[in-house]
Amino acid sequence: MLQAAAEISDAIGVDNVSYDEDVLDHHGHSDWSTSNSPGRAVAVAYPRSTDDVVAIAKVCNARNVPMVPYGAGSSVEGNFSQPYSGICIDLTRMDRIIAFRPEDMDVTVQPGVNWMDLNAKIAESGLFFPMDPSPTATIGGMVSTNCSGTNAMRYGTMKDWVVNLTVVLADGNVIKTRRRPRKSSAGYNLTSLFVGSEGTLGIVTEITLKLAPTPADTSVAVVSFPSIASAAEAASALMRSGIQLAALELMDDVQMQILNRHGSERVRARKWAEAPTLFLRFSGTTDGIRSDARRSGEIVRAVAGKVPFHFARTKQDEHDLWAARKEALFTMVSTRPPGTEAWSTDIAVPLSRLAEIIDVSKRECGSLGIFASVMGHVGDGNFHVTMTYDPKDEVMRKRVEDVVHDMTNMALEMEGTVSGEHAIGIGKKDCLLDELGEGTIGVMKGLKRSIDPKWIMNPGKVFDLPADMKKGR
Amino acid sequence: MLQAAAEISDAIGVDNVSYDEDVLDHHGHSDWSTSNSPGRAVAVAYPRSTDDVVAIAKVCNARNVPMVPYGAGSSVEGNFSQPYSGICIDLTRMDRIIAFRPEDMDVTVQPGVNWMDLNAKIAESGLFFPMDPSPTATIGGMVSTNCSGTNAMRYGTMKDWVVNLTVVLADGNVIKTRRRPRKSSAGYNLTSLFVGSEGTLGIVTEITLKLAPTPADTSVAVVSFPSIASAAEAASALMRSGIQLAALELMDDVQMQILNRHGSERVRARKWAEAPTLFLRFSGTTDGIRSDARRSGEIVRAVAGKVPFHFARTKQDEHDLWAARKEALFTMVSTRPPGTEAWSTDIAVPLSRLAEIIDVSKRECGSLGIFASVMGHVGDGNFHVTMTYDPKDEVMRKRVEDVVHDMTNMALEMEGTVSGEHAIGIGKKDCLLDELGEGTIGVMKGLKRSIDPKWIMNPGKVFDLPADMKKGR
Repeated sequence: MLQAAAEISDAIGVDNVSYDEDVLDHHGHSDWSTSNSPGRAVAVAYPRSTDDVVAIAKVCNARNVPMVPYGAGSSVEGNFSQPYSGICIDLTRMDRIIAFRPEDMDVTVQPGVNWMDLNAKIAESGLFFPMDPSPTATIGGMVSTNCSGTNAMRYGTMKDWVVNLTVVLADGNVIKTRRRPRKSSAGYNLTSLFVGSEGTLGIVTEITLKLAPTPADTSVAVVSFPSIASAAEAASALMRSGIQLAALELMDDVQMQILNRHGSERVRARKWAEAPTLFLRFSGTTDGIRSDARRSGEIVRAVAGKVPFHFARTKQDEHDLWAARKEALFTMVSTRPPGTEAWSTDIAVPLSRLAEIIDVSKRECGSLGIFASVMGHVGDGNFHVTMTYDPKDEVMRKRVEDVVHDMTNMALEMEGTVSGEHAIGIGKKDCLLDELGEGTIGVMKGLKRSIDPKWIMNPGKVFDLPADMKKGR
Repeated sequence: MLQAAAEISDAIGVDNVSYDEDVLDHHGHSDWSTSNSPGRAVAVAYPRSTDDVVAIAKVCNARNVPMVPYGAGSSVEGNFSQPYSGICIDLTRMDRIIAFRPEDMDVTVQPGVNWMDLNAKIAESGLFFPMDPSPTATIGGMVSTNCSGTNAMRYGTMKDWVVNLTVVLADGNVIKTRRRPRKSSAGYNLTSLFVGSEGTLGIVTEITLKLAPTPADTSVAVVSFPSIASAAEAASALMRSGIQLAALELMDDVQMQILNRHGSERVRARKWAEAPTLFLRFSGTTDGIRSDARRSGEIVRAVAGKVPFHFARTKQDEHDLWAARKEALFTMVSTRPPGTEAWSTDIAVPLSRLAEIIDVSKRECGSLGIFASVMGHVGDGNFHVTMTYDPKDEVMRKRVEDVVHDMTNMALEMEGTVSGEHAIGIGKKDCLLDELGEGTIGVMKGLKRSIDPKWIMNPGKVFDLPADMKKGR
């Protein structure tokens, strides 16, 4: 492997390869992640172009060395960890916008572009890229996990916004999944196969994204409820109404409590009801939003009775209300007691089962006496439970694990999934097998083998290596 | 192959297998199709369940016999033709709605369900399935071609509405692509791989579809323009405005002429301007629609000057206007001179190139002196040119073919695709190779081989058989 690193260094330049222990640690571990591996890459390579990635792949393919792509490092299931060592390929120096075509409503970028930077740069065109994951995320990482975030209710997930991908395969060959039409039925949908494949099928080096028109106006409303069940019922009624919300988010009483105690100054300035709360985001014309908000209020009250429905009166008010939603997870993780770790789940179930599984999950967490809170993209049936616990307390760690296991099993019984948007990484491989079964996983492994016969692309992610590929690793 | 048919007959019942010449012809050829093969299946099997399909697959796999799935028979690229003979698997007797779950906003159906029947059956729930292809299409066929139609602008294409698929693989094994969450990042996106794979990877026997809330109201506006270019410019401005149109369709002067001459009675009752025309479809609340229509009118006039913008004043008016759009292709094909055939293209290009390619295409067709008209899903950059010509006139046939070839090449130069929604079938395999190149097609073939190692699932579609698979066929 070190020999491979040396050859890569020759090929792409000595400044673009690092062997520094701290750099390797930083690229092999994340405090934000629920899953980490003790394995480390032997070197981190920093390609600047598709050609650089081709050079890296050719070396690794010839020497049978694992390649592990790395973006912002903010994924949470050990997606970029290196259990089989190899070369870590840090794509953050590939951060150019290659072509912005407002008249086609699309843009082609390198994988290291941060999505918020992209939106800032194209803002004047009246277009934007509507995914909304962690602010740190890069487009490459977002492709890798099929990310989404709060906007998924209106805009769908990453796969819906990728027009084409340029991919360097394990052997160094380069393919483009399709040309640049917004709509296509031409051949297999390779784009959607590579999106969400977590770097196990190839390294994405260029991405063409659809863009959406920036809404003329936006606003936010916040409603608190006596129970999760009544909040979920209201959410369901809103979804069925056909009002096109930009986002529909749930935060539980614990999350709201955290806002009161530890929120940013402007967020704390408000006294939040410490109760299950829905955040509604509207977008459209100013008149349209006013009418949507009025209808939403009526729908919520018809279901849940006289609950306080607070519609933002000013832009500052809108900003502050949404800031509360956006900073919730960060606030929770950053204010956790020293020495504790956070375990975050990512479950999605059919809409009608959401209230039930959140209720049961909260009760189970409550019985442990640990700190746990729920945040949900309720419009998609997707929610996260974040638990903080002391990892040195073996008994507690085991109990947390059991609770997560129960939650996962319950989600599967409800025909749900163990990953709504964080993907599988190393952390959820067993769950994925429970979810899909040997037959379906077998097809996935067959696809992987057909594209990466030496199994060197991010090995050990999504599913385990087949027995014949484990030899000598 | 006949032995296989006999064994299938034993397995699924003699009433469910036909050897009738007329039945075989009907299943092997379509007047609507641009591409047909002289090949015929030796028998047509009519399974009624996933188990029946498993039984068929096991026989065919053991005897190396091609399996060709068949739905409504309304696809247009020879997608269901049988160039390598085999067993035609007609799925129209699998026409049950298996589970309708309004509270989850989804439905599970067998592949033979017609999409309009489905919508009629669930209408009272306030939900609908928003794709809009030919009225004859079945859900299975729609999965197979990744269809769309006029609603794609707002609702996307088939792949965006499929939650999961149950698939019988070539060897008779059954997989489910995922469980039933509306959103997922759990493993490879097999759902989107099977959608649009034209039955070459397996036979889909159950489909779970997302449903959308039926809009509170809809309406239609029709605007005619002095030129295709000005219509396209107006379309582009509408798209950039962020007004959420349900559909945005273009018909050229020739199509409008046909409506005046051969439209249904109510359509002919109106005198249509014989000029390039945009059909705008609105959906939402009644107030919202009025405001969208007003803004649309302003945008169109800002771009194209004082053009006649006709907004439907009554429900009957709305119905008649949209009927004109919906019956256009059918009217054209059914009123073509006796003995002539129709050749329909399905090109999609980046939005900014649409006017140019339509203009050039019209000029080329015009120079042949044949009858040709253009219809476009302009919101997606997708359009169809339909040409009618006498197939016995070899010289003309060749010239039509050349024009199509020119159009296709031009689309590819513009980074477009040779198939926006009709898929590849046998008719566009060469174009697909031009479009994607050997490398990308090679990956697709590798995927196919990993799932269907004997290459018996709908062989000869999407791409040619590899040399080793051609032996003995």
